[in-house]
Amino acid sequence: METILTSKTKTVVIGPERPFTMIGERINPTGRKLLAAEMAAGNYDRVRSDALLQVTAGAHMLDVNAGIPLADEPAILAKAIQIVQSVVDVPIAIDSSIVAALARGLEVYEGKPLVNSVTGEEERLEQVLPLVKKYGTAVIGISNDETGISEDPDIRFAVAKKIVERALDYGIPREDVLIDPLVMPIGAIRAAGRQVLHIVRRCHQELKVNTCCGGSNISFGLPLRPPLNAAFLTMAIGAGLTSAITNPIEPEIRQAIMAADVMMGHDENCMAWIRMHRPQAAADSQNGRRERRRRAR
Amino acid sequence: METILTSKTKTVVIGPERPFTMIGERINPTGRKLLAAEMAAGNYDRVRSDALLQVTAGAHMLDVNAGIPLADEPAILAKAIQIVQSVVDVPIAIDSSIVAALARGLEVYEGKPLVNSVTGEEERLEQVLPLVKKYGTAVIGISNDETGISEDPDIRFAVAKKIVERALDYGIPREDVLIDPLVMPIGAIRAAGRQVLHIVRRCHQELKVNTCCGGSNISFGLPLRPPLNAAFLTMAIGAGLTSAITNPIEPEIRQAIMAADVMMGHDENCMAWIRMHRPQAAADSQNGRRERRRRAR
Repeated sequence: METILTSKTKTVVIGPERPFTMIGERINPTGRKLLAAEMAAGNYDRVRSDALLQVTAGAHMLDVNAGIPLADEPAILAKAIQIVQSVVDVPIAIDSSIVAALARGLEVYEGKPLVNSVTGEEERLEQVLPLVKKYGTAVIGISNDETGISEDPDIRFAVAKKIVERALDYGIPREDVLIDPLVMPIGAIRAAGRQVLHIVRRCHQELKVNTCCGGSNISFGLPLRPPLNAAFLTMAIGAGLTSAITNPIEPEIRQAIMAADVMMGHDENCMAWIRMHRPQAAADSQNGRRERRRRAR
Repeated sequence: METILTSKTKTVVIGPERPFTMIGERINPTGRKLLAAEMAAGNYDRVRSDALLQVTAGAHMLDVNAGIPLADEPAILAKAIQIVQSVVDVPIAIDSSIVAALARGLEVYEGKPLVNSVTGEEERLEQVLPLVKKYGTAVIGISNDETGISEDPDIRFAVAKKIVERALDYGIPREDVLIDPLVMPIGAIRAAGRQVLHIVRRCHQELKVNTCCGGSNISFGLPLRPPLNAAFLTMAIGAGLTSAITNPIEPEIRQAIMAADVMMGHDENCMAWIRMHRPQAAADSQNGRRERRRRAR
C-alpha cells in the first residue's frame, strides 16, 4: 500500500512502512490577509519564500492553495504551482474546492501530484475523479458527503469506503486514494481525537489505504497549540496515519514526527534522530576523521 | 474497568475513561548510587524530597523501590513506604522482585496499594498472588514467563491473559490486575514501540484490563530522551494505555500526558490544559472577578 508522488526530479512514497510524510500547509491564503492580497496582485515573493522555508524545515511535499475570494483562483493556483516548482523540487498537493482550479493546476504541474481533494458527494466524485484518472494522479478523499460530517466515525468510514470504491470504478487504483478522516476542533467536540484514531485505524487495517489529515485544526481555539498538534499527530501515527498537512516550521511538530518515526520503527537505527540531536557530536566526529586523515597523510 | 487504589486519605481511579495516571518513578535506588547509599545507611531525606517533588509536579501515585544489593531490602522498603506515607497522601506502588519485601511493605502500608509486580512465571504467581489476595490490593502483571520475554507481541499477550486468569482463580478481580506489556529499548529492538501498542490494544479491547508500563526504558541509549518518552507515552495512550511509571518532573512528559488527556477527551472542556497554559489569563480573570465583586458591594 504505497502512494507514489513525483515532482520533476523527486519521488515521495507514502506508506505504512515508510517514515511519515509531512506536507507543508503554509502556502494557503485562508486566514493570511497579506498573502492573499499579494497573490491576488500577482506578487508571489511570499509563496517563494514559504516554499523554501518549509522544504528547508523538512517538508517532504507542499500543499498549494489559492482560495482568495473574488480572485481568478484557477489562474492564481496555476501560477503559484509553477512558481513553487521553480524554487523547490518536492511534489505538490494541488489544493482547491473549485474543480476548474484543480484542472488548471493539473495542466501546468510537472510530475505526479496529489489532488486535494474530493469528498463523498456525488457531484464532486463525478467531477474530480475523471480529472484524477486523466492525469494519473493521486487524490485525497475527505470523509464527508451530502449529509455533512457525521460525528459517528463508522459513518465517516463508510463514506471513505465509498470514495475508494468509486475511484476503483474510475480505474484509479486503491494506492492512489488517501483518506482524510476530517479533524474537528477538540475544544468543541470532545470525541474529535478518538473519532480520528478510529477512522485511521479502520482505513489502515480494513480498507488498506493511506491517510492524510490536517494537523492543526484539532487545537483550534485552544491555548498553546503546537504541543496539542504534536500529541494529536503522534497518536494518529500510532494508529496508522501515513501523512499530514501541517506546519513543518513549528519545531514541536517536526520533533514529534521524528520521534513518532522512531517509535514506529521507521527511522532505521534511529539515525535521523541521532543525527538531528547530536550535531556537535557529529561535527566532532567528522573533525576527528578529518584530523586522522590529515595525520595519515 | 476501573482500578481503585487508596492511601490513608486519597483515592486514585485508573481506567480507560479517566485521565491518565502518572506514577512517579524516582524513588528507586537502581542506578542512583547516592540514593542507594543513603537508604542503606538509614537516611531517607532524599526519599522524602523526591516524594514531595514528584507529587508537586503532578504525580498521582508514587512507585517505591528499595532494591539495594546486600542491603536488608524488606526493612528498607517498609521504612521508605512509611516515610513516603508520612509526607504525601498519594497511593503507592510497592516495587520489589523479592517476595519478602513485598510482604513487609504490605504489612506497613495504610490503604490499598499497587503491588509491583508479578510475572507469568509459575513460582512468582504462586508466591505473589496469595499476598495480593490477602491484602486485597491490585497488582501489576508483567508479560514475561519462564521462557523469557518474547519478541512476538501475541505471545506476550498470551502471558498477560494467563496472569489475569490465574488472578481470577485466586479470587482477585480482573479490575485489580494491570498488565505491563514490557517496554524494550527501541534503539536495540526496532519493533519495540509497535509491540507495546499491539499488546496494549489487545489488553484494552479483548482482555478488558488496565495497563501500566515503564515510560523511560523505550529511549535507553538514545540522545534527547524526554521527547522520545513523550512520543511513546502519547502513542500508547492513544492505543489505550491507562497508567505509566514515569518521571513527572520532566516537563515534556507532563505536558505530553496533559495533551494526550485532551486528545482522548479525558480533560473535560480542556480545563486542565487551559488552566496550565494560561496562568496569567487565569490570574487576570480571578482578579477581574474580585474587582467586580468589590465594586458590587
